[in-house]
Amino acid sequence: MPAPILSLEQSLHDLVVANRILAHEGVVDAYGHVSVRHPLHPDRYLLSRSRSPELVEAHDILEFMLDGTPVNGAGPTPYVERFIHGAVYEARPDIHSVVHSHALEVMPFTIGDIPMQPVIHVASDIGMNIPLWDIRDHFGDTNLLVSNLAQGRDLATCLAGNGVVLMRGHGFTAAARTLVEVVKASVYLPSNARVLKEALLMGAKVKPLSAGEIAIRATVDPYSPQIQRAWEYWALRAGVKPYLD
Amino acid sequence: MPAPILSLEQSLHDLVVANRILAHEGVVDAYGHVSVRHPLHPDRYLLSRSRSPELVEAHDILEFMLDGTPVNGAGPTPYVERFIHGAVYEARPDIHSVVHSHALEVMPFTIGDIPMQPVIHVASDIGMNIPLWDIRDHFGDTNLLVSNLAQGRDLATCLAGNGVVLMRGHGFTAAARTLVEVVKASVYLPSNARVLKEALLMGAKVKPLSAGEIAIRATVDPYSPQIQRAWEYWALRAGVKPYLD
Amino acid sequence: MPAPILSLEQSLHDLVVANRILAHEGVVDAYGHVSVRHPLHPDRYLLSRSRSPELVEAHDILEFMLDGTPVNGAGPTPYVERFIHGAVYEARPDIHSVVHSHALEVMPFTIGDIPMQPVIHVASDIGMNIPLWDIRDHFGDTNLLVSNLAQGRDLATCLAGNGVVLMRGHGFTAAARTLVEVVKASVYLPSNARVLKEALLMGAKVKPLSAGEIAIRATVDPYSPQIQRAWEYWALRAGVKPYLD
Amino acid sequence: MPAPILSLEQSLHDLVVANRILAHEGVVDAYGHVSVRHPLHPDRYLLSRSRSPELVEAHDILEFMLDGTPVNGAGPTPYVERFIHGAVYEARPDIHSVVHSHALEVMPFTIGDIPMQPVIHVASDIGMNIPLWDIRDHFGDTNLLVSNLAQGRDLATCLAGNGVVLMRGHGFTAAARTLVEVVKASVYLPSNARVLKEALLMGAKVKPLSAGEIAIRATVDPYSPQIQRAWEYWALRAGVKPYLD
Repeated sequence: MPAPILSLEQSLHDLVVANRILAHEGVVDAYGHVSVRHPLHPDRYLLSRSRSPELVEAHDILEFMLDGTPVNGAGPTPYVERFIHGAVYEARPDIHSVVHSHALEVMPFTIGDIPMQPVIHVASDIGMNIPLWDIRDHFGDTNLLVSNLAQGRDLATCLAGNGVVLMRGHGFTAAARTLVEVVKASVYLPSNARVLKEALLMGAKVKPLSAGEIAIRATVDPYSPQIQRAWEYWALRAGVKPYLD
Repeated sequence: MPAPILSLEQSLHDLVVANRILAHEGVVDAYGHVSVRHPLHPDRYLLSRSRSPELVEAHDILEFMLDGTPVNGAGPTPYVERFIHGAVYEARPDIHSVVHSHALEVMPFTIGDIPMQPVIHVASDIGMNIPLWDIRDHFGDTNLLVSNLAQGRDLATCLAGNGVVLMRGHGFTAAARTLVEVVKASVYLPSNARVLKEALLMGAKVKPLSAGEIAIRATVDPYSPQIQRAWEYWALRAGVKPYLD
Repeated sequence: MPAPILSLEQSLHDLVVANRILAHEGVVDAYGHVSVRHPLHPDRYLLSRSRSPELVEAHDILEFMLDGTPVNGAGPTPYVERFIHGAVYEARPDIHSVVHSHALEVMPFTIGDIPMQPVIHVASDIGMNIPLWDIRDHFGDTNLLVSNLAQGRDLATCLAGNGVVLMRGHGFTAAARTLVEVVKASVYLPSNARVLKEALLMGAKVKPLSAGEIAIRATVDPYSPQIQRAWEYWALRAGVKPYLD
Repeated sequence: MPAPILSLEQSLHDLVVANRILAHEGVVDAYGHVSVRHPLHPDRYLLSRSRSPELVEAHDILEFMLDGTPVNGAGPTPYVERFIHGAVYEARPDIHSVVHSHALEVMPFTIGDIPMQPVIHVASDIGMNIPLWDIRDHFGDTNLLVSNLAQGRDLATCLAGNGVVLMRGHGFTAAARTLVEVVKASVYLPSNARVLKEALLMGAKVKPLSAGEIAIRATVDPYSPQIQRAWEYWALRAGVKPYLD
């Protein structure tokens, strides 16, 4: 699975598409964001200025150092929570894309003690183990936003080698090898949450995906037609061109 | 956080936008309404004539005295429940905007004895304490509408210094320092209700927002870019210009 | 509350609007229908040919005798279940409009033993008592469709003097004094079902509307601006003109 | 109920319409597919290339042998899971159309031990007995996709003479005499799942459809106006012409 060499132009286009997809599929609303590691400078990442994802265009996208410093210091207001992204890229060289979301279907698993488990095959990218991070544990009362590097690193530590970390009363952060993969995980995590929740409510003895099933599914090439098919579909639904001409 | 000086023209524009946002986000349907305190005459408020919020335009908006009397007595039919708004403005000089809604996701918390609690950070504007008012307690059998000043004042007394009051079998009333803030609280209260409800149904031991978290979040400037970002997004989704040119 | 004298042209227009509203609000889908008593011949009613409500136009509407016989015998295929409508008009001279729907939110109350109760004020038109009819009780195994006059009359007997009758595994039939009123009841019955269901699931001690509240609400003039406001809103959302020019 | 003689052109048109309907009604998303047995060669079937159903057009549709071999070997990438379709056509000469879906409302019944039952009349095509297949039972850890003929045949064996088979953590496969019928079953199975689930959650003593009711409903001619009415409605909603001119 050699990743194609991406140009900056390609990355910017794909990131705009990802913003629109996540908005259209209800993964993000006024809040939430998605980034990619810079294709030419692995110690930087690309992320929109402080704007709702549905409205993001290529000229809104800024470059950041992993510590959250804008490469162009005189730019527009960035997202307060950009530290989530940099801290994950810093801790995880294998990760090339990060999503932060408040999707409501996931939230009930963040405010209590019911563990998230992978139960539907399309959500296998979320992995076997989905940790829950509470900003209050190490930082006491805050506005709940991950607004500095120390908080970002604490979150990345809790994420560890997994694909998703839940955030108490706040949402989740997903990390993956490619933008398409993180978008897929972020679209299907809420679906997985809903299915698990409804099965639990009915009192079902739940049969989660097995570690073996998840491992086998992770060998799928993220550039294969069956994954790209979803990207094409989501992009066209959101009214944007899936690929740069 | 000094509030900008608003002109009447600005207030009318913003109020139309708020009507459209609340309709588009499903907070109001054929019924429900939103008002602002008059920017020049703090003893008056602005509220549409009796029309569904999705259809409200600037020329539908009327001026009322705090007791519900139309400033222009010969105008079109007003909302029966305008007394909600005036009574809140009368009791709470700090309040500049009020929403009344029947949002279904909130309703299960109004017809029983399960208390609403703040659990998701975007809903922190609803506050720690969300009282429940039953018109039957002091007024016996009625049509459930707050249709005179005595009923409005009784509701305002129950609201007290809080941000939201639930109304048995009827809906909720939210009050805030600014129009943007009351719209945000009204959009995210139903989300909070849904998340809390689903966590309770799964039998979770729920961890609500703390008083400290809510207090810290309340220090956010309602005119900051991160709040305005939501206004811009909701307005564009609803098909209206967020700001007066 | 004297009803305005309606012309046939007016009734046809209003009935098309009602079809579109019920489809747009999700009360009916491919199936379900709405009728009005003929404004000039109280022993007849108006109902579309067998067509999905979203597609119904004025020229699709047929006249029927109360026994379900088309006034024009050579017309297009009628709904199999037209007997619901005629039987209600026959039994209830006070009724001028009938809706039959399969709305999913109501269905859980039709397949078990959990009684529907009125809990939200906008749904007060459904009344205090909502009986449940099972076609199997008197007719044994059938295709569940009310496909002859005997079945229609049995349903009407179960409806008795109430506003709504639930139908096991099938849906509901609502009956009211006016078309606007039956549309309102049909839009808000599913909402009421959802709110009641969610409160019950949380284990709430439910406080229904009282008989006094329902009686007071029933005195509202169905031609008043606050009721017409909903009609205007629903029609415009559904893309049709609320009123005949 | 003699089936009309269909031309290949007619089958291709109808299959495109079915793809669009299933996408628009939320039965399939980026994934899921629908096929028809070839109208002239009963040992072949028609199925799109690997494309999301909402985007499928007539030129995307390929011909396959029942073992999953493309008739035109040099064609575009097929669905990995085409073996579902061929194996069902092989085992069931009475079946002329197959749908495979991941509809979320059905999924809670696939990951636990709560049996699906038919409870709403519009879903009677799903039948009395809805088996649950787990690919892990005979094939151990896999990627959960039915990606070879042995797996397809195992699924078809579990389906046996029924109309629907649930697939653990994956979705369902529905099979019927006609395309219209399998689309109807696939649209209403999720509705049935939702209604059953909500009744169970309320603790209702559930009254399913009886075997007699299902048998009587199965005698309806799938080419009758009351079935075609749904096809017309769903197609127009999805923005396609229901019938070939």
